[in-house]
Amino acid sequence: MEIEKLWEEVRELNLGTSSQVERLESPPSPLRFLRDFVSPNKPCIISNATLHWPALSSWTQPSYLSHALSSSPVSLHLTPNGLADALVPRPDDPSSLCFVSAHVQRMPFSDALNLVSSSSLSNSFVAYAQQQNDCFHSEYSALAPDVDSHIPWATEALGCLPDAVNLWIGNHLSETSFHKDHYENLYAVISGEKHFLLLPPTDVHRMYIRDYPAANYSYSQDTGEFTLELEKPLRYVPWSGVNPFPSPADRDREMAFFPLYFNGPKPFECTIKPGEILYLPSMWFHHVRQSPDERGLTIAINYWYDMQFDIKYAYFNFLQSICGPSSFFLPEARTWEVSDISIPTTSADAANEDLSCSVLSATHNDIPLATKSEPGASEIAILSEVADA
Amino acid sequence: MEIEKLWEEVRELNLGTSSQVERLESPPSPLRFLRDFVSPNKPCIISNATLHWPALSSWTQPSYLSHALSSSPVSLHLTPNGLADALVPRPDDPSSLCFVSAHVQRMPFSDALNLVSSSSLSNSFVAYAQQQNDCFHSEYSALAPDVDSHIPWATEALGCLPDAVNLWIGNHLSETSFHKDHYENLYAVISGEKHFLLLPPTDVHRMYIRDYPAANYSYSQDTGEFTLELEKPLRYVPWSGVNPFPSPADRDREMAFFPLYFNGPKPFECTIKPGEILYLPSMWFHHVRQSPDERGLTIAINYWYDMQFDIKYAYFNFLQSICGPSSFFLPEARTWEVSDISIPTTSADAANEDLSCSVLSATHNDIPLATKSEPGASEIAILSEVADA
Repeated sequence: MEIEKLWEEVRELNLGTSSQVERLESPPSPLRFLRDFVSPNKPCIISNATLHWPALSSWTQPSYLSHALSSSPVSLHLTPNGLADALVPRPDDPSSLCFVSAHVQRMPFSDALNLVSSSSLSNSFVAYAQQQNDCFHSEYSALAPDVDSHIPWATEALGCLPDAVNLWIGNHLSETSFHKDHYENLYAVISGEKHFLLLPPTDVHRMYIRDYPAANYSYSQDTGEFTLELEKPLRYVPWSGVNPFPSPADRDREMAFFPLYFNGPKPFECTIKPGEILYLPSMWFHHVRQSPDERGLTIAINYWYDMQFDIKYAYFNFLQSICGPSSFFLPEARTWEVSDISIPTTSADAANEDLSCSVLSATHNDIPLATKSEPGASEIAILSEVADA
Repeated sequence: MEIEKLWEEVRELNLGTSSQVERLESPPSPLRFLRDFVSPNKPCIISNATLHWPALSSWTQPSYLSHALSSSPVSLHLTPNGLADALVPRPDDPSSLCFVSAHVQRMPFSDALNLVSSSSLSNSFVAYAQQQNDCFHSEYSALAPDVDSHIPWATEALGCLPDAVNLWIGNHLSETSFHKDHYENLYAVISGEKHFLLLPPTDVHRMYIRDYPAANYSYSQDTGEFTLELEKPLRYVPWSGVNPFPSPADRDREMAFFPLYFNGPKPFECTIKPGEILYLPSMWFHHVRQSPDERGLTIAINYWYDMQFDIKYAYFNFLQSICGPSSFFLPEARTWEVSDISIPTTSADAANEDLSCSVLSATHNDIPLATKSEPGASEIAILSEVADA
């Protein structure tokens, strides 16, 4: 059995072979949610899930949020282009990539909201009010009465309260690259729309995950410019190299570099609207874009519940380990050009050691094999070596 | 990651590292059963689960069963030694093995019960009243009022009624060799005790499953002897070669032939007593022995619920497929001797084609590799070839 067969089988048995996500017209019973979605690790969209939340009307009123939060300090994430937690050229070697986090600045909510609204590429920054540390219960606690503090049927099904609740206030420029979380995720949209691409954990090798050195943006208000710095000491973050929406000019190149993604089964695709919740199962890879409301904002809140580290998780780790811990058919070193706003999404760091693998069929064997990257000191050596080449 | 790491990880994360099965003092709520056991694919024992069943007292009264069933015809399974669905020497080539099913005879219940009670090896037959075809609802329907028709908390959790309910009336000589079922299994003991060995689906390669030609016992009342015949046309059954309880004389040999079983993590072990239920999760390998009550009987009833063919099942199939569909480090052709009553449990059929596999560590590489066997015509050729060797 090849790995491709696994990708097919999980769809035939469990997920369906279309790219549609199952939709429920109302919240499921806890038992049904657990049996039909959490246990089989299958996403669903729940319509009419949060219509009773005051937030659905109040948060869309012009000055409600600013009044409610007034001068509460919140964390604002700033990037040059809306792509945080993304791969960009290394500052010390632009022919290879690093994993960059946003510049985070605490400021009064009203200022933050203004910056989110006025973000544009011509302004040369994009602001995103968010913080994935249970920020709803800290920075945004004044809004607590406007939504449920947890999702009752999910809480009952999962047997625990959410571990974190995060609020996201952004605009159409913010985009989250493919990644997975170790949480059961209930994702509710309040205003605007969120567009998800989803791939099951079985498809891990189609994500081309490698370790990248961590870097941070630093924004200077004086110059209005971003600088990019690698973390010292170097720290490595495993991340997907796949950009599912390459520009037309880049498409052929990206398809050649990530054939398992582009030639395999299509990702599941869905748009979540106000009043709806996406159940995003633990360990699913997801890519998120958003459409704004008439104010230019997209507002969402997500509830992270602890996942069970059970036989599924053990199977996943075994699968991921096959043919190296964090690489799989990565191409050899490549070069690319920095265009205006698009950020290249693959790595030039691959060395050439062969890595044989019998579980993929011969159809992809025309792509050169890459070595697995070892996080830590050895990685630095490999990267330097390739950079010099 | 090697496969051994998977065996360890599923225990560390999910099952515990002792060989104990978790015990609940009373039936769980449907949600807890689903969340803590079915979804993570984890067995448990439920004490005080069936104390309200009239069967617990009535079926142990001397003549109750005979009265209730009187002359109802039931299916009696006859073997020379208590081992049905087991591996025995092929009738046409005693140096290799086949998969044998019992001689099944329909007879009035009272006669069947007498034969079960009077079974002994000196009688040269062992009788087992059972039939895995929902027999409780057909042959034994007169007993229906004595037990619950389903297990309410399991039915609610799984969202369906049992697909089959089977009754088992046997004695201490009957033993069921390692196998797995595609059902969620609720196994209730009424009288006597059942002793289970359990291994999770992740351990599939430790079971040394291969395809064996199917055969049947045929018992002659005239001669009091069994004959053994291969099915025609040949039909192949995948079955485990592991006998977990070899005689002291055979132990070293069995350990050398099945090192992954004998040197790996111990199987989970449990004894189920009257009033208790074992939740035996789908796809778990199980081996069953039994102790009788004072009448020499062991009586149990099991409820098979449909399993979900979800991501766990897809992962299992992928895992099982690694290094060939139904063999894994099987030794080369071996010979063995038929002793009085013990039935050899491994195969002499393995051919010698190498099958490389990178997922097992080097520690087992001293065992010669076997070829995968292809069910069907090609298998016949391979078997003949080896038999001639």
